[in-house]
Amino acid sequence: MANADRIKKVAARVARTKDEGHSVAVVVSALGQTTDELIALASQVCSEPSKREFDMLLSTGEQVSIALLAMALQDLGYDAISFTGLQVGIVTDSAHTKARIISVNKNRIMRELDRGRAVIVAGFQGVDENQEITTLGRGGSDTTAVAIAAALGADVCEIYTDVDGVFTADPRIVPDARKLPVVSYDEMLEMASAGAKVLHLRAVELAKKCRVKLHVRSSFTEEEGTLVVAETQEMERQVISGVSQDKGEAKVSVLDVPDVPGIAAKLFGPLADSGINVDMIVQSVGEDGLNTISFTVPESDLKAAMQTAEKVGSELGARGVQCDPGIAKISAVGVGMRSHSGVAAKMFKALGDAGINIHMISTSEIKISCVVDAARAEEALKVVHDAFELSKVTVEEGTNQK
Amino acid sequence: MANADRIKKVAARVARTKDEGHSVAVVVSALGQTTDELIALASQVCSEPSKREFDMLLSTGEQVSIALLAMALQDLGYDAISFTGLQVGIVTDSAHTKARIISVNKNRIMRELDRGRAVIVAGFQGVDENQEITTLGRGGSDTTAVAIAAALGADVCEIYTDVDGVFTADPRIVPDARKLPVVSYDEMLEMASAGAKVLHLRAVELAKKCRVKLHVRSSFTEEEGTLVVAETQEMERQVISGVSQDKGEAKVSVLDVPDVPGIAAKLFGPLADSGINVDMIVQSVGEDGLNTISFTVPESDLKAAMQTAEKVGSELGARGVQCDPGIAKISAVGVGMRSHSGVAAKMFKALGDAGINIHMISTSEIKISCVVDAARAEEALKVVHDAFELSKVTVEEGTNQK
Repeated sequence: MANADRIKKVAARVARTKDEGHSVAVVVSALGQTTDELIALASQVCSEPSKREFDMLLSTGEQVSIALLAMALQDLGYDAISFTGLQVGIVTDSAHTKARIISVNKNRIMRELDRGRAVIVAGFQGVDENQEITTLGRGGSDTTAVAIAAALGADVCEIYTDVDGVFTADPRIVPDARKLPVVSYDEMLEMASAGAKVLHLRAVELAKKCRVKLHVRSSFTEEEGTLVVAETQEMERQVISGVSQDKGEAKVSVLDVPDVPGIAAKLFGPLADSGINVDMIVQSVGEDGLNTISFTVPESDLKAAMQTAEKVGSELGARGVQCDPGIAKISAVGVGMRSHSGVAAKMFKALGDAGINIHMISTSEIKISCVVDAARAEEALKVVHDAFELSKVTVEEGTNQK
Repeated sequence: MANADRIKKVAARVARTKDEGHSVAVVVSALGQTTDELIALASQVCSEPSKREFDMLLSTGEQVSIALLAMALQDLGYDAISFTGLQVGIVTDSAHTKARIISVNKNRIMRELDRGRAVIVAGFQGVDENQEITTLGRGGSDTTAVAIAAALGADVCEIYTDVDGVFTADPRIVPDARKLPVVSYDEMLEMASAGAKVLHLRAVELAKKCRVKLHVRSSFTEEEGTLVVAETQEMERQVISGVSQDKGEAKVSVLDVPDVPGIAAKLFGPLADSGINVDMIVQSVGEDGLNTISFTVPESDLKAAMQTAEKVGSELGARGVQCDPGIAKISAVGVGMRSHSGVAAKMFKALGDAGINIHMISTSEIKISCVVDAARAEEALKVVHDAFELSKVTVEEGTNQK
């Protein structure tokens, strides 16, 4: 879709919301390829641009969007006004390219909303206390939206995405996956980290902290999406909300290390020092007093993780270090897990009945994850989705939706 | 030239100036087609964009340039920092798209210059007292440069253009035109208004007011350009500094109106009320007590001027109204005119000798303008250029240049 058409579509959507009698503040990100084009320009003039100047450059993308959206709304006959992060008082720390929001000044927005205007705010950007322009990094525009919704005490923060909402599983893999009318912040956080990348973790965390009700919905349809809200008692009746897979990790195993205190710290200390993000950790004790320690890391960290593991492994007298990049993590998430027993057993049985071998297991309060061969990931996802009957509605949605 | 290459060239120029031991503040405008592209985008979403949102949109063009230039300088190993108009305290009135600068806060720039940094400032933009982003309209970036040079007390404000400097006449028309080493502010103002559009009037006026020495020079060569400075005694030795032509006007004549007091006011009052910019006015008294009043207006205003002139003319009992769009104004400019007599006569004689008819004449303290047929404009320009021997250096340039 051409950029101008996108802007007009968004304007029409905002206009409808205004027509319904709501006050509307809109947070927008940069248009289509704008950010990529700006990054390309930067790389043509400088091999290592300073982060400050990078933010100065990138923040223009959102500024173009807000001006165009305000114009498009004016063209439809609506009063609208756009603001940069600076103008609307989005104050961040000074960590250029990945700044964190410290405060939002709601006064200017409230004044304009009270005048009946639609307020258009540039996402992804802010200023530090010296009026230096900062950008928020990944998930920045969603995070801006949540911060502003929190400051304004908005009824709901609608997040428009390219999907219809949050599903019980990725519909591209599990055709009978069902759109969830509502999930809790915690479920959303567990799903996001497990690969259901509908919404950036950071925005969900902020929404949870500030109790902002999110509505994740499609930019392309009028349908209701998924509400992300604080946990309710009704939610617990649904044992599992969704299943997800993550193929982006690799497994590293340090074989046959002596089972003495402090071994784990000796291994994971150096890994943390190297900035390697370890996800799952499993330690198995053999009969001969030797342990095998397995862990997963993002594939991009595998090489560095292997180097560290081999170095530490030889110091500890390990028999060797193995790696397996061909793995997938299958996770089942649900707040109902807390009050229902046998959830893990059901998942293991389903995988076992299908002849899918489980390499690693980890559990949290509301999530069970199993590492399986990547080649069987899609099958595993379907099997678990079926086992928990996620394509069927098992609680009254009417109750669940509020 | 590609945008990145342009930026790199400017960076190299700034680097050389730094190497010479100067503190440098640079004002930049938007890259190549950026402004046109932004305007095109706006027109796709809105038929009549609000001026405020237009400024929000257009100001991103300069912000991209400053970030890229700072990066390019950093890539060359120089410390550089970029600032938007807001950040550097360029405060304007609230007249969006044509704002006027009220004040410039030099503190931030001085602090960075004192640290040895090259300071890159976005031209063409400012903020009003409510932090609303404004743009300065035509000549905006040059005006920003002069305002900052004034605030900093800079030794010189270099203006880089696509010409080599100010010439005695347009070299495309008069091949033996000579580059002037120095001109006065007033000469520059008279030349600019007569069509030598090297530098916008507004920037020259501000430079004159603040006594900022300008150096108009080429972006493409290392050669010295033309200094624009306060008038000196030496300048008066050069009778005429340059000649110029302006074909953008049309002549309107109101024929045979009664020669009674108040006639001119009755005609030019309504023209002014219609926002028509009248340039030259000539009133000729006939023997029968009837006057013909002729005046020139920009061609774009001709239709409106004719309507007003016909309406007023019939009220005044004029015989009729004529217009002539095929005219050109030839002007000779020089501060030496004040102390030299016979300058006008010399110009009239040169045109007369060439058989070129003069339709209108107007004079100011340092300028003589003659309206001639547009078809003979180039010839007239050469004839006058020759008459004053402008291709020859008539005063020692060494004296003149300081």
